[in-house]
Amino acid sequence: MRTSLCDELGIEHPVLGFTPSEHVAAAISRAGGMGVLGCVRYNDAADLDRALTWMDENTDGKPYGVDIVMPAKVPAEGTSFDLDKLIPEGHKDFVQRTLLKLGVPPLPDGESGEGVLGWLHSVARSHVDVALEHPIRLIANALGSPPDDVIKRVHDHGVPVAALAGKAEHARRHVANGVDLVVAQGYEAGGHTGEIATMVLVPEIVDAVDVPVLAAGGIGSGRQMAAALALGASGVWMGSYWLTTAEYTQNDATQQALLAAGSSDTVRTRIYTGKPARLLKTRWTEAWSSDDAPDPLPMPLQNLLVSEAHQRIARSGDPAVVSMPVGQIVGRMNEVRPVADVMATLLREFDEAVERLDKLR
Amino acid sequence: MRTSLCDELGIEHPVLGFTPSEHVAAAISRAGGMGVLGCVRYNDAADLDRALTWMDENTDGKPYGVDIVMPAKVPAEGTSFDLDKLIPEGHKDFVQRTLLKLGVPPLPDGESGEGVLGWLHSVARSHVDVALEHPIRLIANALGSPPDDVIKRVHDHGVPVAALAGKAEHARRHVANGVDLVVAQGYEAGGHTGEIATMVLVPEIVDAVDVPVLAAGGIGSGRQMAAALALGASGVWMGSYWLTTAEYTQNDATQQALLAAGSSDTVRTRIYTGKPARLLKTRWTEAWSSDDAPDPLPMPLQNLLVSEAHQRIARSGDPAVVSMPVGQIVGRMNEVRPVADVMATLLREFDEAVERLDKLR
Repeated sequence: MRTSLCDELGIEHPVLGFTPSEHVAAAISRAGGMGVLGCVRYNDAADLDRALTWMDENTDGKPYGVDIVMPAKVPAEGTSFDLDKLIPEGHKDFVQRTLLKLGVPPLPDGESGEGVLGWLHSVARSHVDVALEHPIRLIANALGSPPDDVIKRVHDHGVPVAALAGKAEHARRHVANGVDLVVAQGYEAGGHTGEIATMVLVPEIVDAVDVPVLAAGGIGSGRQMAAALALGASGVWMGSYWLTTAEYTQNDATQQALLAAGSSDTVRTRIYTGKPARLLKTRWTEAWSSDDAPDPLPMPLQNLLVSEAHQRIARSGDPAVVSMPVGQIVGRMNEVRPVADVMATLLREFDEAVERLDKLR
Repeated sequence: MRTSLCDELGIEHPVLGFTPSEHVAAAISRAGGMGVLGCVRYNDAADLDRALTWMDENTDGKPYGVDIVMPAKVPAEGTSFDLDKLIPEGHKDFVQRTLLKLGVPPLPDGESGEGVLGWLHSVARSHVDVALEHPIRLIANALGSPPDDVIKRVHDHGVPVAALAGKAEHARRHVANGVDLVVAQGYEAGGHTGEIATMVLVPEIVDAVDVPVLAAGGIGSGRQMAAALALGASGVWMGSYWLTTAEYTQNDATQQALLAAGSSDTVRTRIYTGKPARLLKTRWTEAWSSDDAPDPLPMPLQNLLVSEAHQRIARSGDPAVVSMPVGQIVGRMNEVRPVADVMATLLREFDEAVERLDKLR
């Protein structure tokens, strides 16, 4: 399978893989797709620099990209200590009470509970600075168009910019702002997602803009890839599916929970970042639907509120309470396989689906 | 485009069209698909008999079907007068207050405000009785498997039974109950719908059952039809899209509202029947999200509660307050066209999409 996107990005297969793991990202690039490393978890730009240096050494010269989280409108800034003052005590109490109820132990003495700062504009800018010192071939922004000056700088380096969109009007705005690729992210996707499902959203965005569109949300098989391309997409953007690959070694409990989950076991909620995002449904997400749960805070406060909880949950190793963005495709994530196997299966199934369709004409 | 479903149902194109209008249903059948007439609005079986007789005379001998609304579990029965006693006064007050606020006039003197009784088991059974006296080629049930004895009777007439499913486990149960065709209805669909989007649901159900699967939800173009078939469906089930055809002449205000709506202008809510159903978002649906709105009642009470309101709204002719089930595909419903034109476009676009895909291999 080859689309014009392949030439544009210098890749073999129009499969872009978003992942928080440099090991997974490198494996996707080596398999002929494009690995896109999520930067949000790097509070210290030097750590991101090290991860990208590792990728430079482990991608056989194949193209890769990075994903930043940068709202076009600059939000409240400051260190996590300053922002902490804006978080109501009642919210903090609820989080502590819930963790106690769920049996999630505190962090060991001396371990930091510092939040994920990648949601802050200044930190996201440091990610761009570092990324542009590496041979990246794409910067994607998970929260729409980056600010004008960032787009200009990235373009000056000859690197295209992608932006996620959940509505045709957002896609139009991105392209007007200079974005080169639109990721049409449907309701069923993991992480930040809107109300319109992939089946409806993709053709709507394809018809609305004159740049290549990647379909995201609900894609984890070659049949779904064929469907995405039938809808008019130039390629696919997959995030969830790589979380159960062999190269994703960040958390065993998370993989166990994902392998066991069905397509009904996700929930779209504001508890992760303050904006609606689809997560695995667990005892943690369910606790936020109880009668005594407060309303989630706006971005970036909500993520700061829950970030120590996320670290405690990750450490607890309990699959029943994980806090993890994932799409409805989780129902098809039932075994741990190497990235190269996943890619080979996707391509084979795509061919089979197109062959089957061709016979119906 | 021809699938095995075409032979099974005796149709030219694997396009099943659900519609409350016998004119639209007949036109779909004449165009080579299968029109499926929604029976729920026929309180009096004699009226349904007349509609089907008209269809017999206006389908050129082409196959057509009917759609009933029959829960497998028999709900509370009785006349609308008996059931009326179960509806709290506070709910009735809210409806009256809301209609007043929205400027919806009362019904003219002497006009009945009787509810839609097709949701009642006894009335749905009368629909089956009448339908089996006509040369129908399909009975579909909008609420899962019909009761065993109904399936048996329909099969004894040599007529296959279809049932809607929003989860793979429901589809498995339907097939175990003897259902012959499963309609996999995704989140984006109009009317009763679950949480799982078409992109994820269709392959899941295709893999779960060994009967043909129709994809429903988000389908209004040949690209979407090609996507549905790429996902493994044997055909498509379209409902919303026919509401803006020239043959659908039941209500001008509704068509105006649908033509103007975008894909974001729907809402999934329990206010229509008591079960989650996707409706056009209007001042009427928004009123039910206000602080003083009561929780919707269970089926069949909710529909009885709002049925006089539905008649008043329909009569008022105000597009801003219509109460109409429709899917997210409403964003693509932008002009009134004859059914035959819609069908021709679907088939042409399907061919184009498959040709385009074929070139990517």
